[in-house]
Amino acid sequence: MVMTTSSRFDAVRRHTLALAAPLSEEDCCVQSMTDASPVKWHMAHTTWFFETFILERFERDFRPFHPAFRMLFNSYYNGVGDKYPRPQRGMLTRPALGEVLAYRRNVDERMAVLLERSGGDSDLDMLLDVGLHHEQQHQELMLTDVKHLLSLNPLWPAYTDAGFTPASPRAPLGWRTFDGGVVEIGHSGEAFCFDNETPRHRQFLEPYALASCLVTNAEYLSFVEDGGYARASLWLSEGWDWVRANELMQPMYWRRHEDGWREFTLHGLQPLDLDRPLVHISFFEADAYARWAGARLPTEAEWEHAASGARDFGAPGLHPTAEEALQAARLSQLFGACWQWTLSSYAPYPGYRAADGAIGEYNGKFMSNQYVLRGSSCATPAGHARVTYRNFFPASARWQFAGLRLAKSSG
Amino acid sequence: MVMTTSSRFDAVRRHTLALAAPLSEEDCCVQSMTDASPVKWHMAHTTWFFETFILERFERDFRPFHPAFRMLFNSYYNGVGDKYPRPQRGMLTRPALGEVLAYRRNVDERMAVLLERSGGDSDLDMLLDVGLHHEQQHQELMLTDVKHLLSLNPLWPAYTDAGFTPASPRAPLGWRTFDGGVVEIGHSGEAFCFDNETPRHRQFLEPYALASCLVTNAEYLSFVEDGGYARASLWLSEGWDWVRANELMQPMYWRRHEDGWREFTLHGLQPLDLDRPLVHISFFEADAYARWAGARLPTEAEWEHAASGARDFGAPGLHPTAEEALQAARLSQLFGACWQWTLSSYAPYPGYRAADGAIGEYNGKFMSNQYVLRGSSCATPAGHARVTYRNFFPASARWQFAGLRLAKSSG
Amino acid sequence: MVMTTSSRFDAVRRHTLALAAPLSEEDCCVQSMTDASPVKWHMAHTTWFFETFILERFERDFRPFHPAFRMLFNSYYNGVGDKYPRPQRGMLTRPALGEVLAYRRNVDERMAVLLERSGGDSDLDMLLDVGLHHEQQHQELMLTDVKHLLSLNPLWPAYTDAGFTPASPRAPLGWRTFDGGVVEIGHSGEAFCFDNETPRHRQFLEPYALASCLVTNAEYLSFVEDGGYARASLWLSEGWDWVRANELMQPMYWRRHEDGWREFTLHGLQPLDLDRPLVHISFFEADAYARWAGARLPTEAEWEHAASGARDFGAPGLHPTAEEALQAARLSQLFGACWQWTLSSYAPYPGYRAADGAIGEYNGKFMSNQYVLRGSSCATPAGHARVTYRNFFPASARWQFAGLRLAKSSG
Amino acid sequence: MVMTTSSRFDAVRRHTLALAAPLSEEDCCVQSMTDASPVKWHMAHTTWFFETFILERFERDFRPFHPAFRMLFNSYYNGVGDKYPRPQRGMLTRPALGEVLAYRRNVDERMAVLLERSGGDSDLDMLLDVGLHHEQQHQELMLTDVKHLLSLNPLWPAYTDAGFTPASPRAPLGWRTFDGGVVEIGHSGEAFCFDNETPRHRQFLEPYALASCLVTNAEYLSFVEDGGYARASLWLSEGWDWVRANELMQPMYWRRHEDGWREFTLHGLQPLDLDRPLVHISFFEADAYARWAGARLPTEAEWEHAASGARDFGAPGLHPTAEEALQAARLSQLFGACWQWTLSSYAPYPGYRAADGAIGEYNGKFMSNQYVLRGSSCATPAGHARVTYRNFFPASARWQFAGLRLAKSSG
Repeated sequence: MVMTTSSRFDAVRRHTLALAAPLSEEDCCVQSMTDASPVKWHMAHTTWFFETFILERFERDFRPFHPAFRMLFNSYYNGVGDKYPRPQRGMLTRPALGEVLAYRRNVDERMAVLLERSGGDSDLDMLLDVGLHHEQQHQELMLTDVKHLLSLNPLWPAYTDAGFTPASPRAPLGWRTFDGGVVEIGHSGEAFCFDNETPRHRQFLEPYALASCLVTNAEYLSFVEDGGYARASLWLSEGWDWVRANELMQPMYWRRHEDGWREFTLHGLQPLDLDRPLVHISFFEADAYARWAGARLPTEAEWEHAASGARDFGAPGLHPTAEEALQAARLSQLFGACWQWTLSSYAPYPGYRAADGAIGEYNGKFMSNQYVLRGSSCATPAGHARVTYRNFFPASARWQFAGLRLAKSSG
Repeated sequence: MVMTTSSRFDAVRRHTLALAAPLSEEDCCVQSMTDASPVKWHMAHTTWFFETFILERFERDFRPFHPAFRMLFNSYYNGVGDKYPRPQRGMLTRPALGEVLAYRRNVDERMAVLLERSGGDSDLDMLLDVGLHHEQQHQELMLTDVKHLLSLNPLWPAYTDAGFTPASPRAPLGWRTFDGGVVEIGHSGEAFCFDNETPRHRQFLEPYALASCLVTNAEYLSFVEDGGYARASLWLSEGWDWVRANELMQPMYWRRHEDGWREFTLHGLQPLDLDRPLVHISFFEADAYARWAGARLPTEAEWEHAASGARDFGAPGLHPTAEEALQAARLSQLFGACWQWTLSSYAPYPGYRAADGAIGEYNGKFMSNQYVLRGSSCATPAGHARVTYRNFFPASARWQFAGLRLAKSSG
Repeated sequence: MVMTTSSRFDAVRRHTLALAAPLSEEDCCVQSMTDASPVKWHMAHTTWFFETFILERFERDFRPFHPAFRMLFNSYYNGVGDKYPRPQRGMLTRPALGEVLAYRRNVDERMAVLLERSGGDSDLDMLLDVGLHHEQQHQELMLTDVKHLLSLNPLWPAYTDAGFTPASPRAPLGWRTFDGGVVEIGHSGEAFCFDNETPRHRQFLEPYALASCLVTNAEYLSFVEDGGYARASLWLSEGWDWVRANELMQPMYWRRHEDGWREFTLHGLQPLDLDRPLVHISFFEADAYARWAGARLPTEAEWEHAASGARDFGAPGLHPTAEEALQAARLSQLFGACWQWTLSSYAPYPGYRAADGAIGEYNGKFMSNQYVLRGSSCATPAGHARVTYRNFFPASARWQFAGLRLAKSSG
Repeated sequence: MVMTTSSRFDAVRRHTLALAAPLSEEDCCVQSMTDASPVKWHMAHTTWFFETFILERFERDFRPFHPAFRMLFNSYYNGVGDKYPRPQRGMLTRPALGEVLAYRRNVDERMAVLLERSGGDSDLDMLLDVGLHHEQQHQELMLTDVKHLLSLNPLWPAYTDAGFTPASPRAPLGWRTFDGGVVEIGHSGEAFCFDNETPRHRQFLEPYALASCLVTNAEYLSFVEDGGYARASLWLSEGWDWVRANELMQPMYWRRHEDGWREFTLHGLQPLDLDRPLVHISFFEADAYARWAGARLPTEAEWEHAASGARDFGAPGLHPTAEEALQAARLSQLFGACWQWTLSSYAPYPGYRAADGAIGEYNGKFMSNQYVLRGSSCATPAGHARVTYRNFFPASARWQFAGLRLAKSSG
């Protein structure tokens, strides 16, 4: 199905509003930690992106909706000028939510005029693509950020009142082997991708095997009950320091109750569903579990090579299901359940070049001390995932829908 | 004018709602720093006070409005049980503002029933007095806390759209001398006071003089322009470290613009009014200014002795005026402009005894590393100030309406 | 016995060397925390004091021993110029200990020449007195600072190999009552005192009682075993936060072993001697113990008034003994055992004036957020204590020889 | 030249003593930051390594030199048991330096007996190799750590009084191109290597070019003078935050004086020698410089492939010279000047396996959030460098002798 540019723009922009619909003004305003942003800020910043990178350049007689917004809703683009400090985004009770919604409508209308008039400008098309995928990234963050906020509330509020039904048991884990050799990874072709997925290039892979499906809550519970969080030998040195400094004993949203484990979800506090994929763990936890299980994490090249050919990118939801659609090479759960930590540091591909100007600050400048995650999650909007997609977070980040798939060197 | 208990209760409770009226749900929810609390939290906590200390004890068939509120809105009473962590008060997007207002109405109705039925119980009367004065304290904090929040917003939002007219010039500063000797300070009699104002007791004062009025913005600006913030010799050692660590160069809400000084007020950002009293300074700044001016801060006993006999406690507003009603012993601006830092550490009076039980945690446990402020401010509700009143804050606190009156040893 | 100025100078300077004699170069070089300084630094700084405040002013053709020392060994005198950062004093492996000893000898020789020549200059005499008492203060700090350093070493090294014999049981605690009224405190007369002890002035005291002797380890152990460190109601709010943040359960140098309590002392790790005075506690612990015991801390005026007339200032040692010489008004252990926390914040006396110039930075600028301790300790050098002496430390300081004497309001 | 095991052991152990010879007891005792350790600790820990991993296993009737040393001098081996906290290593004034030297002699003697007796045990030989290379690593750290300590001293003490003569001008920078393809990297064969260099494996390299020699001080000075530290666009986002948080404007040991730049070296403070290799920079600085220069850092595979065949590993010194021995493939300064930052995160090679037991904690557990450096430095002892050697440090580390060589993607 091909969408016109306009209808794609409308669909993405409407989806943002739909995600915010269950939330109150207060829910949309508060920032729960520096890593997270308020939902209102996400809604304003994604709008700022179109206003700053497209309207400011292409609109005749451009006049900003509000001159101060250029600074207030700049995230990290030094090339655009001043930025409001990230840790204070939750202080912005003004503009009110209503005013931000008016900002969205205003920019949407001006974009509609522009898109009607300027079809076929390739720079504009490229920037529009970036803007829409950028907004989709923030759609996922809206869910993970508000989930973190709600998790701090002892009333355990649910984002949704939709039912949370137990998953059916997962099929037994199997190992899928790959021969390796010189393979190609990275994006090619005309379809949209982010610059960090390019250029397509060759890598040599030794033979390897990937687990057919994701690690489940049941499997990880065995690790927890086996003293996984108390055995230094299972952890990277830095991970072990992190565990002890934060006195960690379980994944981020697990809660131990007298009558058993529960998990905080966007459906509220629920009994821990053992058959669902484990989620909300850090790279350190993923790595420690893999070591305990006698395996390791895959590299991103191994993952991408194995996933090549996948066509089913999963259906969005609010918590990973245990569904097992085979998505590529007899691998299930590649997409649509949770992001999968890899062993690969986030680094430029050979020959990578960032774009010129402020838009070039999109990806390249974050290529240090982060790890690549592959796949997509239940919170990833439809149409956003790709086999070559490189998500990235610091090794201790846990508030994303991140889990893991085991790998082994074979051969 | 004598009010009935019921009408006093109604008046105080209504005033809280009136203070919140100009604010949005978002404004009421956010916590701008650990020292401050959200307006919504103040509204819930003052209600919790009546529910926990009065209804729970005196109401037949007491059932809490919401069981979790006992913990959520406990501020610091260890005797009541668990407390929600203070730095996370701004995370409570639920209960929504509307639900907190319902909580207020519910408790108000149950209190009305109780007050009608139980007139004359002295324990209840005492607790009701504490509860109402407690709520008045939070009324002042609502204004200072939301002022701090709004001050972080580059849009400089005003709490009120009432006009901000320049003050008329202050009369020249004069010195009023007092002989000292054995004097009495502290509360006596039947009228309400907090426990920290008791017992009335004797102190010996050497002869001293107090300034007839408060230090103005004009006077403090001379200090600033004389390099006051850059001269170590003017500061306490700890104050000097604080100035440098925070790179301070002016009072909290002063802003230097190209065309002159401005001050952020509840009326928004305004040209600095030179004739108004200086406000929003720390003890350290008050002390440094006094040293620069060849004077010192008064002790609380000196202040109280000089103020004894005052009858006019000022009319509340949203920023100090330069009005100069003589309030006692030819001293003006004792009350209703700004709290006045004293040289006195907050310590128990000789013979002080805290009440038994959780209510005894009201004052005594804070008697370390804080300084006493005397008088009252433009944000102090009518009927709350007293000559014997002891306000207290840490030496570096600046977000209160605090200024200073100079003193000297004479004789 | 009257000493000549020269022989007093020699005696004090020699005592510093005697205190350092049991220590290695390494022991003298290391700084164990920001509050403490290396022994070598103490030896250099006390020398710097004479060179900077006396020789630089009075010596003909003054030339510094080493130009860089003026900055390296300045503690906190902004009026003298730059200072080497306090937290880095332990980084100064150069100058070597030997060079610092040469510095001492050089300044001693130049001082001898000066003192011979300039007898009778009252400014010089005053500064010499300050310098010698300043050095005595640092003599006490040398012991407390090196004790802290050694306490971090799992080998529990002893500063001295002198025997540590159990104390004889203390006589039962008694209460001594005082009528109060208008009393005088503060220093008067020609003998040396620090500026913070002046001027002598009147205070009004309500009737009170003091404990005849100090709180013992046995008594404090009862508090510990009664859950003293786990009961919020016994603590100041700030003290309770401090206890929990640092997970404290006993005084600083107590260690719980399988076979009973031990205490780290300058004699090494010793069985806890129940009859000796409790020592190395903070103001917060002193205050909590007093509350548990149904008493309170004395104010400094109460303490000084009760101690007036004391003539026996105790004999120095390396740990408090239980000796009970009656020192004033039937009070024992006023001096020579441990400093005694008072309820009094460190503040200027009415009429206090600091000296002009850098020497005026000696005391006044520290008059905030500290508490006064009275008496003297086993580590205070002979000839240093006075009835009017005001020692002061922050409420959480524990590494000094500080204990407590109980007080009560009577009458 | 082939050395016997015994003479190799003697030579390495003697070299440690030679490095410490110019230092005082005080110099050897102090820890200047958490990343660094005292020289005395290095001398004890390297001895502990032989005692714990060899003598404890192979010596008959093993008895430790001092039971407490097992814990005191354990660095990070959880498998060995408790460890003395790293940030407190500088607190260990006891054991004295003399006692540590006695410890070294004792272990040396016992090792001599053992080596004479047990020739040919392959486990022992392997552990001995590890122990000697481990000690060589600490030899380099002794120099970098004491350099950091001395740099904090305003007296700028020199470690050595050997002359520091200006380097001769470097030949112009040239670019050497490499075809890439499937190459092999990693260690193979019988000679010693660390486990992180194995297994030898294949990687695919796109065509690339390396600079013929290292970046010089002159070149980096151009970057500094071009505002390199003030232009966000040149830096990784994390690097830019680091620059601003630490207010950085030049490499770690450069000092701007009125009459020009100087550099603190082990020869003391010297005029900045423009022709010498730049040294003491972080990964962030290396990366920013490369971006400014229109190039990038090499990957470790590129570096190793280009360096293969190198035979000359440089002669140790105390500061990099500008000497340009061609070491491989027309590349000079591969070894013996400074470690060279690569773009490669420190990660396990495909098929990597850590050893079992505590000795397996040597390398693998540090494989997160660090970057690989290749080559060797002036401080690397003779016989320690290898083409396959993987050094690693966090991206912000600057106290090592680390510089950079530029790379480009060609083809």
